Amino acid sequence: MSKYVFGVDVGGTTVKLGLFDKDGELLDKWEVPTKTENGGEKILPDVAASIQRKMKEKSIRKDEVIGVGLGAPGPIDAEGTVYVAVNLGWGTFSIRDTLSGLLDMKVKAGNDANVAALGEMWKGGGKGCKNLVAVTLGTGVGGGIIVNGEILTGTSGAGGEIGHIHVQDGETEVCGCGNTGCLEEYASATGIVRLARRALESTSEPSILRNRPVETLSAKAVFDAVKENDAVAIQIAEKFGEYLGKGLGVIAGVVNPEIFVIGGGVSKAGDILFDYIKPYFDKTVFKGCKNVEFALATLGNDAGIYGAAKLVLE
Amino acid sequence: MSKYVFGVDVGGTTVKLGLFDKDGELLDKWEVPTKTENGGEKILPDVAASIQRKMKEKSIRKDEVIGVGLGAPGPIDAEGTVYVAVNLGWGTFSIRDTLSGLLDMKVKAGNDANVAALGEMWKGGGKGCKNLVAVTLGTGVGGGIIVNGEILTGTSGAGGEIGHIHVQDGETEVCGCGNTGCLEEYASATGIVRLARRALESTSEPSILRNRPVETLSAKAVFDAVKENDAVAIQIAEKFGEYLGKGLGVIAGVVNPEIFVIGGGVSKAGDILFDYIKPYFDKTVFKGCKNVEFALATLGNDAGIYGAAKLVLE
Repeated sequence: MSKYVFGVDVGGTTVKLGLFDKDGELLDKWEVPTKTENGGEKILPDVAASIQRKMKEKSIRKDEVIGVGLGAPGPIDAEGTVYVAVNLGWGTFSIRDTLSGLLDMKVKAGNDANVAALGEMWKGGGKGCKNLVAVTLGTGVGGGIIVNGEILTGTSGAGGEIGHIHVQDGETEVCGCGNTGCLEEYASATGIVRLARRALESTSEPSILRNRPVETLSAKAVFDAVKENDAVAIQIAEKFGEYLGKGLGVIAGVVNPEIFVIGGGVSKAGDILFDYIKPYFDKTVFKGCKNVEFALATLGNDAGIYGAAKLVLE
Repeated sequence: MSKYVFGVDVGGTTVKLGLFDKDGELLDKWEVPTKTENGGEKILPDVAASIQRKMKEKSIRKDEVIGVGLGAPGPIDAEGTVYVAVNLGWGTFSIRDTLSGLLDMKVKAGNDANVAALGEMWKGGGKGCKNLVAVTLGTGVGGGIIVNGEILTGTSGAGGEIGHIHVQDGETEVCGCGNTGCLEEYASATGIVRLARRALESTSEPSILRNRPVETLSAKAVFDAVKENDAVAIQIAEKFGEYLGKGLGVIAGVVNPEIFVIGGGVSKAGDILFDYIKPYFDKTVFKGCKNVEFALATLGNDAGIYGAAKLVLE
């Protein structure tokens, strides 16, 4: 009687693990360190050992486990093969076959952002939807697209990499990906700081944002200032909203989602983000794709383990 | 022993029909007029009657027919319901249930551009691929996206409507969709004429394109002039390539396809289009999604009946 499923979210410093029942109730969660040395060769054996320890602790038999889902940073195709995950030291190999060999269980694997999107669809901000775009506004901008309940993996596992769509010509600063003018350069936490720096330099208008050491300028500081009606902060939020709103408008025109679920550190600013994103979205999106909800992500750092568990249940 | 399938492509003036074997061999094709009067109430009965006549003519029994696939212009969801198809006079109803009721056969229906994309994947320019974006450069710009062998329909049947992604701020002429700055305003046959008109007005440089009545200016004339090294025409082609190349770069970043298949009247210019599209695509696309092929559509006006047939075989 299979009734349990494990969800694993491999990060650069820790691996998060969750034990779920098959309805998606989180029964237990814990972490182990990520050992990236020697090409990350210990990561999957550590995951397997940790799962086996947990099964022993809870007296769970192998035939009670449906399988193990795993998300990791890097391009991972629909068959569970990863193609170089720099942060983990991994080259190219089958996560599915390796972990399945260690545990003798069904294993599925996917890109961490895509898997987190699946988690938000299953139990988070997009619950009940089958066509969803998850947008993670963190240090970078990540994304995951769910079409008809399934992850849009793409040909080389790079589906939903919306942080690097080109939104601005003539940008002089180079994005982490090597291009210029990527959405990430304006809509990530660091991108918002870039917009803030530029706005503060371009005017001598008074602003709360000036009354602090420049190195403490953050996305949070900007949106806190917006909430206090700071004119310069509002101008920065407008720029942010223009880039992100137009970018999401294009994405909506391509995949016609039911909902955008916005997560990551920047989303802690709350619903006020939508006040700046939506007007630009509404103005530019194709009318046939305009009817989209905007919601905040609700699972936080647990989205990855939820989505990984769901991966096996599909 | 089911071995035949019918593919139907409903257009504003004629309905194209094809009889295929289940391997996709086109055995016969023919047309009937599209009667759009009275809310297009005759269209599906005419389709049904035409299929029944063909079955009689070829002595095909009903149990030998796998089913009927149909593509039509308008938003059609994954269940085969159309939501207002202005060109046909249709309101909202289930094409699948109506036609299936008339024929007592399995019926599937989809948006014509999406269905044509499926046709190009099956037997056309994208043969052998499972992740494909079809781009139709005609009077407008249409599109269809295939993910893992299946049509990306989207929430309201508007998936792949790439002609209306916003690519330019500050455009003063309004697109057919009511917005401004849509890809269609620059990359369609009429869009290219718009770019040509603007280029000719902005300079007095000599050009082959001036030696003709302005009303005969066409996308074909522009690319013919490009092939003769006409400097103004090349400048127009560059603009066209910039808009389309950057637009396709964004689309690639979202859905990570294996191939773009370019069809429609403009594509008759041939491979020379790619010389203008690719440099802008390469410059702006996310590197993880850069490895995309560009091919010309090969099925022409038959893409719709091929794709419709494939719809039933899935």
